[in-house]
Amino acid sequence: MSGDITATSLRFARRLLQRKFRATAGEFLVEGVQSVREAVAYGSPRAILATDEAAEAFPDLVRSGYERLTPDHVRALTDTVTSQGIFAICGTPTWSLDQVVTDEARLVVICAQIRDPGNLGTVIRCADAFGADAVVLTAGSVDMTNPKTVRASVGSIFHLPVVAGVDMTTAVDAVRRRGMTVMAADGSGTMLDQVADAGGLDGKVAWIMGNEAWGLPPADLAVADTVVRIPMWGKAESLNLSTAAAVCLYATASRQRR
Amino acid sequence: MSGDITATSLRFARRLLQRKFRATAGEFLVEGVQSVREAVAYGSPRAILATDEAAEAFPDLVRSGYERLTPDHVRALTDTVTSQGIFAICGTPTWSLDQVVTDEARLVVICAQIRDPGNLGTVIRCADAFGADAVVLTAGSVDMTNPKTVRASVGSIFHLPVVAGVDMTTAVDAVRRRGMTVMAADGSGTMLDQVADAGGLDGKVAWIMGNEAWGLPPADLAVADTVVRIPMWGKAESLNLSTAAAVCLYATASRQRR
Repeated sequence: MSGDITATSLRFARRLLQRKFRATAGEFLVEGVQSVREAVAYGSPRAILATDEAAEAFPDLVRSGYERLTPDHVRALTDTVTSQGIFAICGTPTWSLDQVVTDEARLVVICAQIRDPGNLGTVIRCADAFGADAVVLTAGSVDMTNPKTVRASVGSIFHLPVVAGVDMTTAVDAVRRRGMTVMAADGSGTMLDQVADAGGLDGKVAWIMGNEAWGLPPADLAVADTVVRIPMWGKAESLNLSTAAAVCLYATASRQRR
Repeated sequence: MSGDITATSLRFARRLLQRKFRATAGEFLVEGVQSVREAVAYGSPRAILATDEAAEAFPDLVRSGYERLTPDHVRALTDTVTSQGIFAICGTPTWSLDQVVTDEARLVVICAQIRDPGNLGTVIRCADAFGADAVVLTAGSVDMTNPKTVRASVGSIFHLPVVAGVDMTTAVDAVRRRGMTVMAADGSGTMLDQVADAGGLDGKVAWIMGNEAWGLPPADLAVADTVVRIPMWGKAESLNLSTAAAVCLYATASRQRR
């Protein structure tokens, strides 16, 4: 079931590097062994693209056949310097808020206008690691199927639902309707340890995480039940987005599961 | 005290982009408003390089004068697309292990062969945020004065001592002599929450964090008193280095300060 990739197929794969084309096609490109493995396990890829070398090294990933790539093709599909030469084309998951924020949801992450694709991927990976039920992206966020996001998520994008393009008010209404407490991460808030000790993280929690550069605007802080700050004891004024998300989600998941 | 940058001075600044030259010169280049501000506050810069625009916008940073850059000079000094046009040249801090791992040290991070400059900068920022006394880099790590490391540390490189090129055994001996418990972060260990509940994080702790790609080799795990894993409840197999460090350091600092 394998053969050289056709010119049409290669052109299609290349165009998936553009956000606009991905939106029209409803598909996206996944690169690298670990991500393709998760795609095969959870993402029902429509096609696998691989060099013969990659196909030989990872026979489990090309069991249903693959479109053969040359090293030149690989270079056209990625800016990774040491590409592993294997890709998958997957359908973009389309979840609605109501599908993912259910009565059973206990931990949800709402990202306000994340702009850096790598950051978003790392936040999705953290949300997955700490057992979050969903990640919600407000309108104006970077595309969740951006190749850098997909790469940084290391497969987590296939593990939990990510809903994009939601208004903050709509997102907060949805989680609150399901009985979740809304926490906003911001340097002006109550110390995380204090909130945890008071039992604030024991129930259902939705975290609002702000943009990398400007954090959360007053309007987003105002919709939260509690504004929470991560305690810092050194001279650093802040953490970056993904490390802040890791701490908030770990602290919450750890409390919820005691 | 300000004037156009000389050709010699510009050439010197450019050569600081090379690791070898930085090592010979004993100086490094700092870019961006926030980092330069921390350099001025804590790093005694030998020179400030700035465009007139940057100098006007941030007069506090050029109070002792600056060497004037043109937009072309800026492009020669950085690969940042939207550079803020301000740089500092600082002496590379040279700490010895004995200077930083003292009897008073309560939290130390030992990084085993970190290779990604951005990761290292983020780990240094986390160590700073959670009040660590020092970061120790084993031989074979990326250079702490790499421009990407400096940028990702957002000034933290000036806030706490970073010691480079240390053997793992030497590092572990030093922290143990000061009464620190040595924890190694690895998926094979005891759950972090369990260690915390048993009081394992209340005393002086040194964390060994592994390389981004291959983690910690058996030899490094063997020197630790306890191997600790971050609990994960979803389908992700691991966290990335900086988010893992954030969780371990937050959990420890939080326990130590109760």
